[in-house]
Amino acid sequence: MYVGVDVGGTKIAAGLVSFEGSLLKQKSILTKAERPFEIVVKDIIALIKEITSELADDELKGIGVGIPGIADKQTGRVFECVNLGWRLVPLRQVLEEEFKLPVYVENDASVAGLAEYTVGSLRGTTNSILITLGTGVGGGFIIDGKLYSGTNGLASEIGHMVVGDNFYKCNCGKTGCLETFTSALALINYTKKLLAEEEMASPLRDYIGEREEALNAKLIFDLAKQGDSLALMAVNRLVKYLAIGISNLVYTLDPEIISLGGGVSKAGDYLLNLLKAKVEEIKIFKDVPSARLVLAELGNEAGIVGAAMLCRFS
Amino acid sequence: MYVGVDVGGTKIAAGLVSFEGSLLKQKSILTKAERPFEIVVKDIIALIKEITSELADDELKGIGVGIPGIADKQTGRVFECVNLGWRLVPLRQVLEEEFKLPVYVENDASVAGLAEYTVGSLRGTTNSILITLGTGVGGGFIIDGKLYSGTNGLASEIGHMVVGDNFYKCNCGKTGCLETFTSALALINYTKKLLAEEEMASPLRDYIGEREEALNAKLIFDLAKQGDSLALMAVNRLVKYLAIGISNLVYTLDPEIISLGGGVSKAGDYLLNLLKAKVEEIKIFKDVPSARLVLAELGNEAGIVGAAMLCRFS
Repeated sequence: MYVGVDVGGTKIAAGLVSFEGSLLKQKSILTKAERPFEIVVKDIIALIKEITSELADDELKGIGVGIPGIADKQTGRVFECVNLGWRLVPLRQVLEEEFKLPVYVENDASVAGLAEYTVGSLRGTTNSILITLGTGVGGGFIIDGKLYSGTNGLASEIGHMVVGDNFYKCNCGKTGCLETFTSALALINYTKKLLAEEEMASPLRDYIGEREEALNAKLIFDLAKQGDSLALMAVNRLVKYLAIGISNLVYTLDPEIISLGGGVSKAGDYLLNLLKAKVEEIKIFKDVPSARLVLAELGNEAGIVGAAMLCRFS
Repeated sequence: MYVGVDVGGTKIAAGLVSFEGSLLKQKSILTKAERPFEIVVKDIIALIKEITSELADDELKGIGVGIPGIADKQTGRVFECVNLGWRLVPLRQVLEEEFKLPVYVENDASVAGLAEYTVGSLRGTTNSILITLGTGVGGGFIIDGKLYSGTNGLASEIGHMVVGDNFYKCNCGKTGCLETFTSALALINYTKKLLAEEEMASPLRDYIGEREEALNAKLIFDLAKQGDSLALMAVNRLVKYLAIGISNLVYTLDPEIISLGGGVSKAGDYLLNLLKAKVEEIKIFKDVPSARLVLAELGNEAGIVGAAMLCRFS
């Protein structure tokens, strides 16, 4: 049995996971990220103890943790988690000392990629990619049948791959990051811009009125499906840049499958079909087969299951 | 002993290479790419026979070929070489039937990356990248100590990674490919645009006058070094987008080393230092170490040596 912990900016979820990747039990708590690491990690320890309280002594074989940031593979030290205010914190060390078990720490999108590889849409592949399209954008890479996080844990941070020029800067200081075109937040930001600049009639505009805070990715996709011109402009722009991002991944890693996860991917086959058409349109070598696009199969449990699977695949 | 063959649009070079990667003997012929594959491949066979004529019967252990295009790893069939007019040609099969030896076919930039990995600037790395900055832009990826060409041979085609919006389209039909910002041709194209649009005095303008065909990357770099404002604008733009391309590679593959080869890299430390400063400027996670930038160590022989090394590493 393994424990997987999914540390997010809002909540921390932990679960008991079988060696094969089945989630048997889970529990979550609020992160309260304004507190220092030393306090938050005590909550994590208590959560793990609670979730494992009914196990026999030697049943638990390892603990994996997914974090919204970069971890040092050698030391398990967390370099940086902006949302949590963590910088250079010894996460693995604290947990190993507490539990006397192997502990693995990895970026949350990488962990979700590992979950899709183990029990989801990337099963059976040798080289494959999960793109997580949520508030931000992340990636999980499987290369040669293993999770790939690069030399310093920076690999697959594809939200910060520059794919064009954009009208606003990314949090990272650069302009044109994939995340600023294709995250849920990017879709909302661009829709706001259209609402301010375009004159066209639109049910979306009527619905929102002055309440711009009511905008969300689901609403924009739903109205685009119904033919709302303004919502469609916003969705088409997301699709254009996501297709460029996917094309960039094809001409770097050339995976068998690219899978779409995260909140934006809930637009489902509607998004997938628009995207397939756009990727085909900008394809270069027409004779050469390239990555199959699919939807991720796991939901929120990917974070816990993937974290646990770090114990199996590390 | 291996034979390495470097097939280019202008000439074809073949060489005898030791198991360790030393080039012992070489010879080249003109490609005359207007001729059909069936004729060109006869010249390649004759060239290999000439270069191996003094070997004992069982001394030659394999033949590797670098091509300016995409090869099918399973069959060794060449999908496409635009410059050669080759499409779906059975290169490996023809050579294997002729020589009764293992034959390997790979993209030329990948092959150059393998040469740098074996005897050049990428020696001793686990994950590393060669970027070739010539008339076009290509890449060679080493991942987990092996040459990586992806599922269908499309990996490391980084010349077609989109990194921004550009004022002209790439041959591939897309806008904003790395190649259209950072190849020797891109540098020349942008300098021509500046000469047409900018009023500033410039020794480059005086030197070139109406003879735009006299423009070349070396001249532009040389004048930039001497402080020519117009040449400097062109070089700075190349540096800006090459830094973005490098940053994109860091946030996808996170290699230990990124090495710069090809004609443009002959600008040497001048280019390297400008580039290091720009990459540092746009770095996101300041605490996390990232790829070291270096200059490639091999020259034109990289094509032959790397092709031969396919026999050792495949």
